[in-house]
Amino acid sequence: MAIVKMVEYDDAPPEVRAVYDDIMATRRVDWVNNFWKALAHHPPTLKRTWESVKQVMAPGALDPLVKEMIYVAVSVTNNCEYCIVSHTAGARKAGMTDAQLGELLAVVGMANETNRLANGYQVEIDARLARAAWGK
Amino acid sequence: MAIVKMVEYDDAPPEVRAVYDDIMATRRVDWVNNFWKALAHHPPTLKRTWESVKQVMAPGALDPLVKEMIYVAVSVTNNCEYCIVSHTAGARKAGMTDAQLGELLAVVGMANETNRLANGYQVEIDARLARAAWGK
Amino acid sequence: MAIVKMVEYDDAPPEVRAVYDDIMATRRVDWVNNFWKALAHHPPTLKRTWESVKQVMAPGALDPLVKEMIYVAVSVTNNCEYCIVSHTAGARKAGMTDAQLGELLAVVGMANETNRLANGYQVEIDARLARAAWGK
Amino acid sequence: MAIVKMVEYDDAPPEVRAVYDDIMATRRVDWVNNFWKALAHHPPTLKRTWESVKQVMAPGALDPLVKEMIYVAVSVTNNCEYCIVSHTAGARKAGMTDAQLGELLAVVGMANETNRLANGYQVEIDARLARAAWGK
Amino acid sequence: MAIVKMVEYDDAPPEVRAVYDDIMATRRVDWVNNFWKALAHHPPTLKRTWESVKQVMAPGALDPLVKEMIYVAVSVTNNCEYCIVSHTAGARKAGMTDAQLGELLAVVGMANETNRLANGYQVEIDARLARAAWGK
Amino acid sequence: MAIVKMVEYDDAPPEVRAVYDDIMATRRVDWVNNFWKALAHHPPTLKRTWESVKQVMAPGALDPLVKEMIYVAVSVTNNCEYCIVSHTAGARKAGMTDAQLGELLAVVGMANETNRLANGYQVEIDARLARAAWGK
Repeated sequence: MAIVKMVEYDDAPPEVRAVYDDIMATRRVDWVNNFWKALAHHPPTLKRTWESVKQVMAPGALDPLVKEMIYVAVSVTNNCEYCIVSHTAGARKAGMTDAQLGELLAVVGMANETNRLANGYQVEIDARLARAAWGK
Repeated sequence: MAIVKMVEYDDAPPEVRAVYDDIMATRRVDWVNNFWKALAHHPPTLKRTWESVKQVMAPGALDPLVKEMIYVAVSVTNNCEYCIVSHTAGARKAGMTDAQLGELLAVVGMANETNRLANGYQVEIDARLARAAWGK
Repeated sequence: MAIVKMVEYDDAPPEVRAVYDDIMATRRVDWVNNFWKALAHHPPTLKRTWESVKQVMAPGALDPLVKEMIYVAVSVTNNCEYCIVSHTAGARKAGMTDAQLGELLAVVGMANETNRLANGYQVEIDARLARAAWGK
Repeated sequence: MAIVKMVEYDDAPPEVRAVYDDIMATRRVDWVNNFWKALAHHPPTLKRTWESVKQVMAPGALDPLVKEMIYVAVSVTNNCEYCIVSHTAGARKAGMTDAQLGELLAVVGMANETNRLANGYQVEIDARLARAAWGK
Repeated sequence: MAIVKMVEYDDAPPEVRAVYDDIMATRRVDWVNNFWKALAHHPPTLKRTWESVKQVMAPGALDPLVKEMIYVAVSVTNNCEYCIVSHTAGARKAGMTDAQLGELLAVVGMANETNRLANGYQVEIDARLARAAWGK
Repeated sequence: MAIVKMVEYDDAPPEVRAVYDDIMATRRVDWVNNFWKALAHHPPTLKRTWESVKQVMAPGALDPLVKEMIYVAVSVTNNCEYCIVSHTAGARKAGMTDAQLGELLAVVGMANETNRLANGYQVEIDARLARAAWGK
């Protein structure tokens, strides 16, 4: 159970309604999901977070499907249930196939495994890899 | 400092050399990075991990660059320094541009922020999102 | 569902009852919450944990509300549902307002974002900041 | 070693200089720390992150020292070295004493311990605590 | 709710059935738990993961009970509910007593606490400990 | 660099010396490692933490080597460098062989992988496993 009351559109103050309207217009949907209704508990956080998400998730050098999959990868690693479900939904909407979902989770699992093997052995960074990470 | 001695090619037993040879052939490089030289401390883990990584990172429904970027996203979230550097290097090699790196890290940062906002407010999952996550 | 049976007061051995009595006396309440009833599965852990929590959460150089908010910040970052709910309750009891809750979670979210940006870019520590962290 | 080149003031494009100027003016310092010089690799992330941090960390319902200590709590839990050092420095500057630092880390440690005990026993949330978290 | 449909034996393609048969034969049980039915969504991940788990969890230099307890320790630290329950079940089956469960969780809690104290103070590694970690 | 000055024996107040003496006597060594010298910054945390560690790590239903390996598993999962090194050293001292180290890290890696697969697919807990976790 959420620790605050969801702020519904009809009960929302004007600055919250403005954000809800922009969410619905940007996403071309006619409803607002619970994440935003919880954030509306603190209107400055609602507004700032929505503006950041809108900017970060817009098409750019990476396409929206790739961005949604990266979002899922982080959410799975952090075990944020709401975020896993909502961004898997977002990735589906952006065109993710069943095979892509399977490969996405396989990479996430493998990365979590090798992260711990690298940590566990305290592996030192190769000078060549450090240079390559710089793009040289 | 690594907690085990790196196993160099010249000192490696045959089953380790076979893995090193396959790593170099698959990646078309003439050297083996420290991660594998540490894992060679325990040859069954070296062999199993390499075979898993080779399968998971091969082109499939997702292209190799997307897979490398997902790997970076997980490694950044876990703060695995070796993994961040080595997979940023891998992503660069697979064609990641500076702009793509900037957007990748922006999404990773934002996902970590909203994960905590969702957790902090204990937001409940919308039934519509749950259906959408199933692809319905 | 908990993986052990909650130990109720009436069924508890004397060393467990002594801890329950101290919890109720210290907190001026007439009931014991499930966390302690689960820990009572292993009486030495119950006793040690309660004594540590009592010492750590007592008023000192930081006031109890600040301590509860720090506890919430950690619990949200770790996504421990029980801990988020119980320490949000504790912070409310210690006087946390709705506006303070909103700001607390905003800081927690932002810290999780910038933690990943710092990790992702592998930012090196400035010498001036290191000195300042020492209080110089 | 950072995976991108730090953007120094003299080499920075105008939109980056504008952010650097605002950082120095807001904080009343005459230098910019490496975190921002790394983010300047991707100017939209630099600008968005600075504006968010400035808003979130401003005095409000919580005072700046409490906000810095919450930031440290999150950074320690995530083990982000840069963030631990920079926000410990920030907390010192905002007046944190040695005794407060000691208590802060004691709470962070204890919260991480009890988070795992609650998770490990899979303790169920008490109805009374859930109500109290709502402020009732 | 899982984000994919569980693949039941009767509906499973031959390569999935082969894995299910091996799971049941290896574990001497007549059913397959949900984890594998979810992974069957992506048959290569099912097969690779099962073969890895079978190899890693087989008796070797560490006995199966110790391995299950290590699995629980990781799962508690990550707060993976499914994994905590399934590997606590596995550890019980391998002979874990109530007292061992109590001590296991006490160590996990303590390790999570001291991990943060070491991080928080940014303690430097003693040269003697580094040598001892190498076995010297 | 640590954010506080290490408290050396010769400069330590009596209550700190008493803890150092007990650490050396209990472990039968003639030196104190940096972790404790950092905690001595806040004497109540030093005393409480040492007494807890001494109690938790003492032989009981689990032997000391198993406890050290569980400590390593948690520290690797959290990526606490100091803790990985110091508890690998502790495990070596308690008799851990190279083969046991290899298997330990293999289990830790695998657990981190399957934790994310279980999270990613949001697998629901089987009723049979829940009963088995209770020891029934």
